[in-house]
Amino acid sequence: MDERVREHAEVLVDWSARVEAGDDVVVSVAEDAHELGVAVAAALGERGANVTTLYGSSEVSRAYLKGVEARVEGEGDDAVDADDFDADPGVERAVFEAADAYLRIGGGRNVTATADVERPTRRAYAKARQGVREARMDTDWVSTVHPTRSLAQQAGMAYEEYADFVYDAVLRDWESLADEMAEMKEILDDGEGVRIVTERDDAPDTDVTMSIAGRTAVNSAASVAYDSHNLPSGEVFTAPYDTAGEVFFDVPMTIDATRVRNVHLTFEDGEVVDFAAEAGEDALANVLDTDPGARRLGELGIGMNRGIDRFTDSILFDEKMGDTVHLAVGRAYDACLPEGESGNESAVHVDMITDVSAGSRMAVDGEVVQRNGTFRWEDGFEAGD
Amino acid sequence: MDERVREHAEVLVDWSARVEAGDDVVVSVAEDAHELGVAVAAALGERGANVTTLYGSSEVSRAYLKGVEARVEGEGDDAVDADDFDADPGVERAVFEAADAYLRIGGGRNVTATADVERPTRRAYAKARQGVREARMDTDWVSTVHPTRSLAQQAGMAYEEYADFVYDAVLRDWESLADEMAEMKEILDDGEGVRIVTERDDAPDTDVTMSIAGRTAVNSAASVAYDSHNLPSGEVFTAPYDTAGEVFFDVPMTIDATRVRNVHLTFEDGEVVDFAAEAGEDALANVLDTDPGARRLGELGIGMNRGIDRFTDSILFDEKMGDTVHLAVGRAYDACLPEGESGNESAVHVDMITDVSAGSRMAVDGEVVQRNGTFRWEDGFEAGD
Repeated sequence: MDERVREHAEVLVDWSARVEAGDDVVVSVAEDAHELGVAVAAALGERGANVTTLYGSSEVSRAYLKGVEARVEGEGDDAVDADDFDADPGVERAVFEAADAYLRIGGGRNVTATADVERPTRRAYAKARQGVREARMDTDWVSTVHPTRSLAQQAGMAYEEYADFVYDAVLRDWESLADEMAEMKEILDDGEGVRIVTERDDAPDTDVTMSIAGRTAVNSAASVAYDSHNLPSGEVFTAPYDTAGEVFFDVPMTIDATRVRNVHLTFEDGEVVDFAAEAGEDALANVLDTDPGARRLGELGIGMNRGIDRFTDSILFDEKMGDTVHLAVGRAYDACLPEGESGNESAVHVDMITDVSAGSRMAVDGEVVQRNGTFRWEDGFEAGD
Repeated sequence: MDERVREHAEVLVDWSARVEAGDDVVVSVAEDAHELGVAVAAALGERGANVTTLYGSSEVSRAYLKGVEARVEGEGDDAVDADDFDADPGVERAVFEAADAYLRIGGGRNVTATADVERPTRRAYAKARQGVREARMDTDWVSTVHPTRSLAQQAGMAYEEYADFVYDAVLRDWESLADEMAEMKEILDDGEGVRIVTERDDAPDTDVTMSIAGRTAVNSAASVAYDSHNLPSGEVFTAPYDTAGEVFFDVPMTIDATRVRNVHLTFEDGEVVDFAAEAGEDALANVLDTDPGARRLGELGIGMNRGIDRFTDSILFDEKMGDTVHLAVGRAYDACLPEGESGNESAVHVDMITDVSAGSRMAVDGEVVQRNGTFRWEDGFEAGD
């Protein structure tokens, strides 16, 4: 076994999920993530934790949902709705209610394995399992991926090259990155307003402002101890509101198995009032039409993981990349909100990313914090407006 | 997908587990059983059942148990005992307590994947999870396998040849086999004593008697509706006692990853008083020394599935083969016992098989029921002593 697989498992179990002896840990292993699943099980045995292993297969999910579609069609219905599923089935709810930690190891055989499941079916399934989802979010959950051929292909990379990429992103000095990100968190916590500007010859301009007053940023250091649930992570994010202006997202992404490129959003009074995309505009429209909250921002995130040096069409990595900023329409994370207050609510949370490595600046309360990808505490930072 | 995979899934879900709409079904998918897992999920979606999929990986189990061994060794202990595990961990117990049905799909990549886990570790693990096991047995559980290269190799067969073998065994007319087995069940239910004799030039003789008075035979027709939990099945079994005589088991088997061949047992007053094996005698001794019940019979089974035409070193198939009889030392099944009465108790249940296709007879209360593999209701049956 590649020594890095073992190291990945140890980072996941110890740094990320903070597993202790006696913990009940649920591990979900995707189709081609066997090796990391094995390494995680070994680590859990060594720590004295208990393990239950789920099979996180997209092809199994697809088959189940196609089965449901066939049944509903046989009953003469047009589309699957939430009533066609039992709400929060007992076993799944029981699993996550009893679990202390949930480790989701992605890495299937085909990132578009569920592409032919109808959109209403997927929505209905998600809606019927909201309680399961909440129970899962109440655990110390962490999401990671094992490098697979399928993910390498999605990234446009050779398999070995992609594996190197994943381990560069995952096997970091997380303590020291957490310290650096704490600086950014402090700036955002103290700040009231953020302005992001990009001016480049090869892309439409971005000039957007948003309020962050009263909101708490998350130092997402890939550990539940930091309210951070992704490995890799390496971003600082908060929950903005009252957004206004124009944003151009030049990083391609995949929404509902559709490739979406060059999204342009116009905000007024906190809401998307106009949108366009060079590719996948329908998928984008579908997201924005989900519910009222889907047209408002749920997240402003600043990518600070410099182990991630290229886009791979995977949000787990892309949004953490150094020299990027992302905004998400939809649901805000509770961790960013004052105790007991709820932020933007929505059934969706879709991140969109802008490269800020050149021709850009981000200012908090009028003071530039990052220019052309360089933070103000770094060498080479240019002050000014 | 091979149409037979779909048919296998349908037999499993409909005939074997009798799944109905609204049932919570837990499916365990072994490493190389993906295809059948997909087909089962599709069938469950069509039936309106809920599904939770476990990853039944022997390599994950091995890694976990080796991790536990490393921890215990690090603590300065010699061997793992049950105290080194949490008793009946919450998630696993919750899974099976909430489940209506449990479908275990075997088919890993290496039947000896756990060969280097110490025996005390395995025993301790099983002991600490007795409550989980009981909760699992309280569901409508069914165990089957998907044909894999590993199982083909264990059987000494080519992969395609092995797949044909599996589907011949699984895709039967179960209704009609159940009717035939009902005759055998009636004979055993009404009977008081069984005698099995084999006299062949190439093997030691068998001549053994046992009491079955008051015991109820199970018509194991591969369906929970018949108290039968294996697919394939095709055997009638009961719980004998007061065994006396000699038995020679000429069918090879694997106990605790050890090949065991040509077992000879001598019974007196219901108990094994002498034993020998040409290979694997230590593994056999270990079984018999588990507890007092491990030296007494828990089962007499009569194989009646003529779709199984060869031994493949897998008890799931071997013990169901037509023209065989098997005895198991250890635990008896409750289904064979009068309500409220408990039969032979033991932590083990190990089946051993004798070929009765030639030079053999089985009599119930002195009347020959099967001679040289032919039952008395079949053409070519020879009556007599």
